[in-house]
Amino acid sequence: MTEPSPAKKMKPSGYQHTRENFLAVYEKLRDALLEDKVLGNQPTHSKEWLKQVLDYNVPGGKLNRGMAVYDVLEAIKGPEGISETDAFKANTLGWCVEWLQAFFLVADDLMDGSITRRGQPCWYKQEKVGLIACNDYILIECCIYRIIKHNFSGHPAYVQLMDMFHEVTFQTSHGQLLDLITAAPGGEVDLDKYTLDNYLRIVTYKTAFYSFYLPIACGMLLAGISDPAAYKIQDDYLDCYGDPKVIGKIGTDIEDNKCSWLICTALQHVSKEQREIIKENYGKHDPKSVAAIKAIFNEVGLEEKFKAYEADSYKHLCSRIEEQKALPKGVFTSLLHKIYKRSK
Amino acid sequence: MTEPSPAKKMKPSGYQHTRENFLAVYEKLRDALLEDKVLGNQPTHSKEWLKQVLDYNVPGGKLNRGMAVYDVLEAIKGPEGISETDAFKANTLGWCVEWLQAFFLVADDLMDGSITRRGQPCWYKQEKVGLIACNDYILIECCIYRIIKHNFSGHPAYVQLMDMFHEVTFQTSHGQLLDLITAAPGGEVDLDKYTLDNYLRIVTYKTAFYSFYLPIACGMLLAGISDPAAYKIQDDYLDCYGDPKVIGKIGTDIEDNKCSWLICTALQHVSKEQREIIKENYGKHDPKSVAAIKAIFNEVGLEEKFKAYEADSYKHLCSRIEEQKALPKGVFTSLLHKIYKRSK
Repeated sequence: MTEPSPAKKMKPSGYQHTRENFLAVYEKLRDALLEDKVLGNQPTHSKEWLKQVLDYNVPGGKLNRGMAVYDVLEAIKGPEGISETDAFKANTLGWCVEWLQAFFLVADDLMDGSITRRGQPCWYKQEKVGLIACNDYILIECCIYRIIKHNFSGHPAYVQLMDMFHEVTFQTSHGQLLDLITAAPGGEVDLDKYTLDNYLRIVTYKTAFYSFYLPIACGMLLAGISDPAAYKIQDDYLDCYGDPKVIGKIGTDIEDNKCSWLICTALQHVSKEQREIIKENYGKHDPKSVAAIKAIFNEVGLEEKFKAYEADSYKHLCSRIEEQKALPKGVFTSLLHKIYKRSK
Repeated sequence: MTEPSPAKKMKPSGYQHTRENFLAVYEKLRDALLEDKVLGNQPTHSKEWLKQVLDYNVPGGKLNRGMAVYDVLEAIKGPEGISETDAFKANTLGWCVEWLQAFFLVADDLMDGSITRRGQPCWYKQEKVGLIACNDYILIECCIYRIIKHNFSGHPAYVQLMDMFHEVTFQTSHGQLLDLITAAPGGEVDLDKYTLDNYLRIVTYKTAFYSFYLPIACGMLLAGISDPAAYKIQDDYLDCYGDPKVIGKIGTDIEDNKCSWLICTALQHVSKEQREIIKENYGKHDPKSVAAIKAIFNEVGLEEKFKAYEADSYKHLCSRIEEQKALPKGVFTSLLHKIYKRSK
């Protein structure tokens, strides 16, 4: 959990935006939840369970999304404009973003039958948990609105905040739905659904809204930006993140019948015969089927296509950031660099 | 779905609160959700899926909870005080209550491995659904806040409404958690946890908040009651609903290792030997074990104890309703009679 962090410029508030300081906010928020009055005098055994659910699933990720809220606020207001309280509020919303991700990951792992997550067994794989995880991720989601209520109920942006989290949750579960029903687990592979448009829609809804839109919008909101046009910019910006290096998972999708950038692009370039082979083999766990698909990916030169697409996306993205005038460029580039570093 | 409804008094607005009219509101709300702009131009296949999720799970219940919101509003304001718009708003919130219940039932059935619900196979048991249900109930929940946003975003009680649904969701999932970890599926039966206090806490959180508190609070809120004291009354009122006839499910809990009124009361009256027999047999699906438990229930005279408890609860409840002065008695009694009729 703790790793040496690079020296940071001292802020007038004395706050340094390190992983350790960000994690300290998690503990405060969690402890307040365990004593939440809405649950009355909670019995020890459920309090202990909730603590375990949270500790196991919320803080163990890379924390890029969560820490980005503060970065965005700092990019807009400058380090000298941020008080200790501002920093705490930014990190609180940062944790709400991480909480939202945890909620979806617990559900995702259960649905996908995944084995490990962040270097430990998935939550539902714990012997004592199993399908109780179905309720645990509801609890994780509930915590988001309790945290917002505890910390922002008198804030002028309280309503906007709740609306934002509701919308992004709806968008993310819509992306999840598209992913699930396009992959048609166990069913007939319908290659006509594997278009780049469908792929981009899935990743945008399933991942980009909560990963990119939400942290930036939280930072903007704390900076007091209320102009809807400034939020609108982000919609365009989101498109760019269709880059699979940024938001796609590559390599495990063949067996799972997933609609990935690779299969969608391959289908644009295959012959009739190759398409038939794909139809027969995609979505099968048999290693021979996987090898047949990979062979076709090589035959159509998918790796070079991917590199070209990646370079194009990055260039396109940078020029979009240059074009927009509503927000400091640092708002976007800090997050962009973290994400690119992350996927190396 | 349609059943003959008793003739109702005509309101000045012309609105009659029948099951048919209530169901017509469902269709409007659903259609607006399918065109929700937050999802952009949703593809046909996901729109069709969402429609099925909603139609299958939301409107098929008894609708007592949902229809109660209008009843409460009418009990407070009188029929002549309710415009067509008021009626629509009451029924919209009534559907939010039904939506909340649907969300929890889909999750519940999946966790409990239930087979049928409301006379049809449980949603997750549909061949094409399975674990996709894990995301479907997230979608059902998301719809609640979209409906509230679509219909109440300019309303003075918008924030209070969202807070209320968040709180009740947190309380209900807390009740669900207590139920799940007290029953300890597959684990050691810890009879020390089977106390009446624990039982009452489980049913209150798992069922009573969304079934009783929420519809009444929605009606009060629409009537413009903002005095927190009036809402507080409900907390006391909730206790009474510990009555198992009202909110307990009796008869299927022995095999499932559940903390029910019956087992908790029995444990107060058994001998050391009987307690041992319970310890050995409770939570086992073997019919012999179930019979052994039922024999002990008979030996301690549980049926008479239950009848006495029921009569006491009802009397206690009625006197509480008499005592309170903040709200018309009809607010409580209309719901009470529906529930009692329901459980006959």
